[in-house]
Amino acid sequence: MAGMELELISWLRARFPQAAGLVLGLGDDAALLELEADEQCVVTTDMLLEGVHFPPGPQQLARVGRKALAVNLSDIAAMAARPIAAFVSLALPRSLTLADVQTLYEGMAPLAERYGVALAGGDTNVWNGPLVVNVAVLGACPAGAALRRSGARPGDAVLVTGPLGGSLEGKHFDFEPRIREALQLRSACSLHAGCDLSDGLALDLWRILAESGVGAVLDECQVPVSDAARRAAAERPEGGSALERALSDGEDFELLVIVDAADADRLVAQPPCPVPLTRVGQIVTERGLWLRTADGTRHPLAPRGYVHGQEPR
Amino acid sequence: MAGMELELISWLRARFPQAAGLVLGLGDDAALLELEADEQCVVTTDMLLEGVHFPPGPQQLARVGRKALAVNLSDIAAMAARPIAAFVSLALPRSLTLADVQTLYEGMAPLAERYGVALAGGDTNVWNGPLVVNVAVLGACPAGAALRRSGARPGDAVLVTGPLGGSLEGKHFDFEPRIREALQLRSACSLHAGCDLSDGLALDLWRILAESGVGAVLDECQVPVSDAARRAAAERPEGGSALERALSDGEDFELLVIVDAADADRLVAQPPCPVPLTRVGQIVTERGLWLRTADGTRHPLAPRGYVHGQEPR
Repeated sequence: MAGMELELISWLRARFPQAAGLVLGLGDDAALLELEADEQCVVTTDMLLEGVHFPPGPQQLARVGRKALAVNLSDIAAMAARPIAAFVSLALPRSLTLADVQTLYEGMAPLAERYGVALAGGDTNVWNGPLVVNVAVLGACPAGAALRRSGARPGDAVLVTGPLGGSLEGKHFDFEPRIREALQLRSACSLHAGCDLSDGLALDLWRILAESGVGAVLDECQVPVSDAARRAAAERPEGGSALERALSDGEDFELLVIVDAADADRLVAQPPCPVPLTRVGQIVTERGLWLRTADGTRHPLAPRGYVHGQEPR
Repeated sequence: MAGMELELISWLRARFPQAAGLVLGLGDDAALLELEADEQCVVTTDMLLEGVHFPPGPQQLARVGRKALAVNLSDIAAMAARPIAAFVSLALPRSLTLADVQTLYEGMAPLAERYGVALAGGDTNVWNGPLVVNVAVLGACPAGAALRRSGARPGDAVLVTGPLGGSLEGKHFDFEPRIREALQLRSACSLHAGCDLSDGLALDLWRILAESGVGAVLDECQVPVSDAARRAAAERPEGGSALERALSDGEDFELLVIVDAADADRLVAQPPCPVPLTRVGQIVTERGLWLRTADGTRHPLAPRGYVHGQEPR
């Protein structure tokens, strides 16, 4: 491995541009990074496993690499932070060549360039087991500005980006992490609470309600249902209606934010980002989660969500 | 997994104390951390694989957990930084129970307490494959104070902590990361260059020489040979002499530092740390690495080192 790792590091140094804030990157014992004044560190990590988070085999290495970075960037967006550097640990099956590993990294490169993320470190291993890709991302945000799950208040509005549901049709691999949108929203108003939608709107919102000690009512007619969710519902009705899929499918990787109702009016009228922004409900004092149907009646909504690793395609 | 992960997070929150600088830890999308004024971030990550870095089977989970954290702390020490927070990603074989996972974390707990490391995030997965433990550690050091591999100058002295060699006899699991020693040395003098000894003195020193553009001569009689290296040499002479093992065995996880010759005199006369500190050689202008024998003759020393994953016990 030592030979392959050296060759890989040399290629990575040329392939991935140095990012602002990176003092010392690949090749020393650890990376050295500098934040701007009055910034706090944001750190997240996610592990993708062959046969669990992506299908077995070397067919989709670029997509796997892309997703491994993208899920972490989505977590950075969920904190309304800016990403700085990524750290990639690999357990490589012996069958993979240097070119295969480069393909995996090539999948990360466009995202890294778009969001100014340095590849600042990692650990490369070869073994007899399946492919494992762990990525950790360091980001930063001004002190006090990070978006948390607590902080939703009664009367606040619930906003989501993008259409929802049906991500397993393909979006779970190729989604765009909402880094820019999170920063645009943070600039446009005070974000009371928020997260990225990794386990489905109902479950992810439920977690925010639990952390904030409040409840919420979602408007059935307002939930933005994706074409993929409609298609999946038509083809496999046993898996739930299009609305049910929009409420509980995982891996949408859109943003869920809780803002003041007046801010929500303003944001929906004049969106700060090109991605669709929809007001899907409101925060209430009574703890619980409800779905309000077109006729105005409220029905309890179970926080059903996605079990990671289910039938990814 | 969701149920086990929730129970695990709740247990981890109680088991691992909050550390200074941790604003937001387990349970949100990402961790939020605050450095002290004028500090830089230090980040490292290491992946341990069942059957590669530790023997197959659930017999040594506490030692595996300890080592997964310790190797990262050794990298933080190698930068002369202070550790702040650890991020643990797991791929767990289905056969492991919650109690097994707790045993793995229990192995990390004493180190985390001793060095003030918060367990600030991670990712827990279950699969049909072998155990994978990835740890990333965030640390910090005053701007400009990080210990790098470049910076060795002709005339400088080469110092190492501890006796060397024979780590596979047991120390590779139970070594103490040299966090305190690195900080004590950094306070006591100007450290020109350094690293931790993960791949053997000859190979790790050779990397420092390459980054610094200089050479070095090691004094055969000064290399501190461990009892374990002597024992291994006596029991398995085909694996090399005790001295050869001290020069090229991996996973010593001691510190190698390059300092001014006058500082070296002072440090060896009045060590700033209780761990043995030995002057093993000097930096020279001519590029290369040599071993000087007792009679004063110089012999080229091949930068032979450790292949990770070889016969760990």
